[in-house]
Amino acid sequence: MTMIAEILCTGDEVRSGALVDSNSAHISQKLEEAGLEVTRHTCVGDNLETLEAVMKEIGNRADIAVATGGLGPTTDDLTTEAAAKAAGGLKLILDERALGEIEAFFNGRKRVMTPSNRKQAMLPQGADILYNPVGTAPGFGLKIGKCLFFFLPGVPYEMKKMLSDQVLPRIEKLQGRNRSFCKTRTISTFGLTESGVGETVADLSEKFPGIRLGLRANFPEIQIKLYAAAQDETWLDAQIEKASAWVSEKIGHRVISLEGHPMEAAVGNLLRQRGETLAVAESCTGGLISHWLTNVSGSSDYFLFSAVSYSNESKMKVLGVSQETLEQYGAVHEETAKEMAEGVRRLAGATYGIATSGIAGPTGGTDEKPV
Amino acid sequence: MTMIAEILCTGDEVRSGALVDSNSAHISQKLEEAGLEVTRHTCVGDNLETLEAVMKEIGNRADIAVATGGLGPTTDDLTTEAAAKAAGGLKLILDERALGEIEAFFNGRKRVMTPSNRKQAMLPQGADILYNPVGTAPGFGLKIGKCLFFFLPGVPYEMKKMLSDQVLPRIEKLQGRNRSFCKTRTISTFGLTESGVGETVADLSEKFPGIRLGLRANFPEIQIKLYAAAQDETWLDAQIEKASAWVSEKIGHRVISLEGHPMEAAVGNLLRQRGETLAVAESCTGGLISHWLTNVSGSSDYFLFSAVSYSNESKMKVLGVSQETLEQYGAVHEETAKEMAEGVRRLAGATYGIATSGIAGPTGGTDEKPV
Repeated sequence: MTMIAEILCTGDEVRSGALVDSNSAHISQKLEEAGLEVTRHTCVGDNLETLEAVMKEIGNRADIAVATGGLGPTTDDLTTEAAAKAAGGLKLILDERALGEIEAFFNGRKRVMTPSNRKQAMLPQGADILYNPVGTAPGFGLKIGKCLFFFLPGVPYEMKKMLSDQVLPRIEKLQGRNRSFCKTRTISTFGLTESGVGETVADLSEKFPGIRLGLRANFPEIQIKLYAAAQDETWLDAQIEKASAWVSEKIGHRVISLEGHPMEAAVGNLLRQRGETLAVAESCTGGLISHWLTNVSGSSDYFLFSAVSYSNESKMKVLGVSQETLEQYGAVHEETAKEMAEGVRRLAGATYGIATSGIAGPTGGTDEKPV
Repeated sequence: MTMIAEILCTGDEVRSGALVDSNSAHISQKLEEAGLEVTRHTCVGDNLETLEAVMKEIGNRADIAVATGGLGPTTDDLTTEAAAKAAGGLKLILDERALGEIEAFFNGRKRVMTPSNRKQAMLPQGADILYNPVGTAPGFGLKIGKCLFFFLPGVPYEMKKMLSDQVLPRIEKLQGRNRSFCKTRTISTFGLTESGVGETVADLSEKFPGIRLGLRANFPEIQIKLYAAAQDETWLDAQIEKASAWVSEKIGHRVISLEGHPMEAAVGNLLRQRGETLAVAESCTGGLISHWLTNVSGSSDYFLFSAVSYSNESKMKVLGVSQETLEQYGAVHEETAKEMAEGVRRLAGATYGIATSGIAGPTGGTDEKPV
């Protein structure tokens, strides 16, 4: 039997829309990968009665729930109190180890612990405490109704670490031999539209029953996602492998990466393998391409230099674009871009030069040269 | 009486975590600005029974609900059918105007309408139809239980337009003379920590009862958000104005903008006013600063040129950093950065030059020069 899971996000910042909740998507993905079926996400604010009510509702519906937020030291942080009430009126008890770890956290940073931080070590009696190695708020596991809740901090970095190191292993243990696996594979493509990709791989589910297809536009790429779930992990891996090879053959040279890497990482790997280097001249993209390229760890192996030149003067002076070209074609033209690419390549002594050109908008476009 | 609102997001992509739901945050903000109290967000997948059940639950709790997603042409799109069931078993009826608009949408794009798009014009009998000027899926308003639901497409661009042009005016009308207003003001600061800002403006709620304070770290800035709600709009504007002036005095020269503009826009406005220009030399930030600067519309008025130089060679050759400086101090040092800034300023003929330096990580750091 597949276990049913729900996700609860708490906090006025998310409820009021001041903050987009990205935690729930992360948790959903991880729980589905672990073979659970996530049926619902709920978000409510910092209100004791609402929190208690919604925990009881989830406790009636789900087998597993992961809740985030509200474990902090301030009076707005009500999750622990609400959980203790929803579990039938448990007492809050000082956990010595949690208190010690909070004290150590502050000492390690040479900061003074405030009395309110002591509140974070007050946890429901009988809870399965999830100590927090990277922050002050410990989490905990607690049964409410028929559902085992895991309460985690809302800070994404802390939540992710505690989810993978502490919550997922506990869930795996619960599943025992009935555990089912869920695998995903992401294939990055470039140069086809979303519907073009969709039509090309439309037969996938027919050829590979049990594999679910998802498409996602991640500008300028289209990602193909393959999902499948089964109890037999070996069979699952083989199926995903076969389906991935089939997709790769169908899409052909428009596949950038079979591991979901973006173009800048795939290009970087090729350059590194070949011992080649790259220089970039940007205009309207204003540093975006350089930023993408240099965001890849290890990019200093092949990325030498980039120039962002808005003015004609700097295009001539630094990149060596000829005055005639600029006068004849203007700043935004293929010929100018060619000379920019060649100029930056020469300047940096790189194997390849790339240049971009255009009008960034929202103003400045003309009929001949649109934004 | 403040009206209670809830938000429902539907779709397997969000439920499974393949997609982060940013719609609900946008809708929450707009509804709270309109004076409603948003108490809960819910997300469920494309499942008819679940959709019907959750609509009935919300119908028992809220006065207003905004739902997104599931209005498309495919068999996965079940929102309309579920809404008709939840409202007590309404028939779905072909809306001629909606059908005409869908046909016109396809004709305008010289694409052929598929029979499945006809399904999008089948709407619950008696629904208040919200025509979609920018896509194929019409939305609709429908009472379920005691709650007036507004169903909108999940595509953010379509949803936002229909929310502001059609849903919010209808809500305002419903509120009539009891309407309350909610105003927010964002103040951008730089150079203080989040807790430093918090302590500096801690007295705000005491000085200005009714104004709620929120802090948000938006690297490298800390934003101060002031929220207030009241029925008297004039009083509200005056209160926010006073509180904003008080905050500005408290924070002093660390305020970047009283309109929530980020640093790059505030700096750009100053440069434009003074008729001055800027050039940038980046190292480890890899184009990020140029990207921020050039993302501001009109930045070509003052932004001339930027160089991203990873190699020592390009630092010497292009920016004119002296070999002695590089040998004595290394690539990552204040002296080197100074010469880079001066070099790029001279090269571009700009009023000011900026340079950054560092080790980007995750590898390459040493004890002396950490990441």
